[in-house]
Amino acid sequence: MKKLGSEIFVYKMSAENKPALTVRPKETIMIATQDGFGGMIRRDEDPFPVIDLDHINQTTGPIYVEGAQPGDTLVVDVRKITLPRQGVTTIFPGFGALHDEFNQEWKRICPIHAGQVIFPKGIKLPVHSVIGTIGVAPAQEAVGNLYPGPHGGNMDINDITTGSKVYFPVFVPGALFSLGDGKAVMGDGETNGVGIEISMKVTLMLDLIKGKSIPRPRLENANYKMTVASSKTLEEASKTALKDMIDMLADETALTREEAYVLLGAVGDIKIANIVDPEVTVRVAVPKYVFRQAKKR
Amino acid sequence: MKKLGSEIFVYKMSAENKPALTVRPKETIMIATQDGFGGMIRRDEDPFPVIDLDHINQTTGPIYVEGAQPGDTLVVDVRKITLPRQGVTTIFPGFGALHDEFNQEWKRICPIHAGQVIFPKGIKLPVHSVIGTIGVAPAQEAVGNLYPGPHGGNMDINDITTGSKVYFPVFVPGALFSLGDGKAVMGDGETNGVGIEISMKVTLMLDLIKGKSIPRPRLENANYKMTVASSKTLEEASKTALKDMIDMLADETALTREEAYVLLGAVGDIKIANIVDPEVTVRVAVPKYVFRQAKKR
Repeated sequence: MKKLGSEIFVYKMSAENKPALTVRPKETIMIATQDGFGGMIRRDEDPFPVIDLDHINQTTGPIYVEGAQPGDTLVVDVRKITLPRQGVTTIFPGFGALHDEFNQEWKRICPIHAGQVIFPKGIKLPVHSVIGTIGVAPAQEAVGNLYPGPHGGNMDINDITTGSKVYFPVFVPGALFSLGDGKAVMGDGETNGVGIEISMKVTLMLDLIKGKSIPRPRLENANYKMTVASSKTLEEASKTALKDMIDMLADETALTREEAYVLLGAVGDIKIANIVDPEVTVRVAVPKYVFRQAKKR
Repeated sequence: MKKLGSEIFVYKMSAENKPALTVRPKETIMIATQDGFGGMIRRDEDPFPVIDLDHINQTTGPIYVEGAQPGDTLVVDVRKITLPRQGVTTIFPGFGALHDEFNQEWKRICPIHAGQVIFPKGIKLPVHSVIGTIGVAPAQEAVGNLYPGPHGGNMDINDITTGSKVYFPVFVPGALFSLGDGKAVMGDGETNGVGIEISMKVTLMLDLIKGKSIPRPRLENANYKMTVASSKTLEEASKTALKDMIDMLADETALTREEAYVLLGAVGDIKIANIVDPEVTVRVAVPKYVFRQAKKR
């Protein structure tokens, strides 16, 4: 199995980035990542690090996928996430949903042990690891790793975890895939701008769907299919993700567009993925039984 | 057990409404409700009804709770929801998250049988009943039943179901509680403005916490404690619900406000309850194990 270490990374997703590794479709690889702070915060007693928003959320890679061409879909099958022995949570001034009240630097190391994160006051949080930043090179200009967008990026979606499949549009030859910004556990919305931030080792399988074009990332797990959109407002992101889901239902099932729309009112699940990044991200989920039962005949 | 029929209802929650029934704290009652359309839509072949937004979402009641005074908290313990044999879903022009595209009248009756809603194309949706509109008389002016607010109202929260406890601020003597707008199943966000709309019979126990004042409704079920806020934007509603949760954690646990804030980034769950009403509603949930483990000593 090919391996890629965390020492080869980028701060922007870009067509200009030189590939760190080349893989064939269906190849399984292991990628090591640093945490979103580049490993700067190791101990409670260290001073609060100087954080530069252009040099944060490093992603390991990029990986060139042989045969990937604009108009294809890249499939990322997340097989395994290995966690370190500690993570860190912070408040950093100017960032987070409630930055007006919480404007002082604050950080805490949280040990990780036996599937639990040890939070202050001894609270034990069950581990649910998440890949916060994951994506491909965008079609046009480079996009900094603090931003989400049609290329993926800093989406902070709780559903991107072991057992998930993530689909990305391919915008440039080779796709130039990279990932990082792990969390041992993260609340939906990522209120203060971070979860329990960790380095990770991620085992995944990359594959291609040739000639199938999607406008934005999509997700799938054992029970749900999901669409994802990022925008300046939650309302706008929600509408885009809802429209994408109606398009997918109209495309893959026998439902009319009207039926797909009212189905979303009955069983669609609109969730705030992140409410804190420069653009916010929303994901819409529909149970897979709907796709099975409403198959085109 | 006292019973209240669906024929005594209001279209606004108001201090001016005359009580339909008086109960003592801890009394269990059964309340029958019409659906949000007042039962106007019974068959697919009937013409689309004329819908007047001032006469929609009727709530059965109001119920006067003996001893309830401004500054108290009303506790509503939802014990049982009995469903009818059918529900209805609609698109009505001008309403719903995607009303630009979906601007034609559309409706479908959905049979309910053996715990399932039969959706068009034969899709079977598992029943998860919800009380969409539930609340008390507001302090000031009457509020129409299409609106959510600090008094509750049209919140459309999926977590208000059998086994939930809902807490409301009491603004007027007797609280003047009412409820309606049932759904057999509803997607988070209520995309098109309706779920599978139903009449219901709801069995519940009303109780009081004397002298405890809360700013807005709160919820609780077996696993979570939740705060709720409604506002013009999802961002604003989210911030208010997050602040309320930090207040609750700082009040009920040993966590500092900073610890409570970063805890929300780790395990807080921000969910869009409705994205379609004149004000949108967000709820924030934190697992109860946090409250247990971080108890004040």
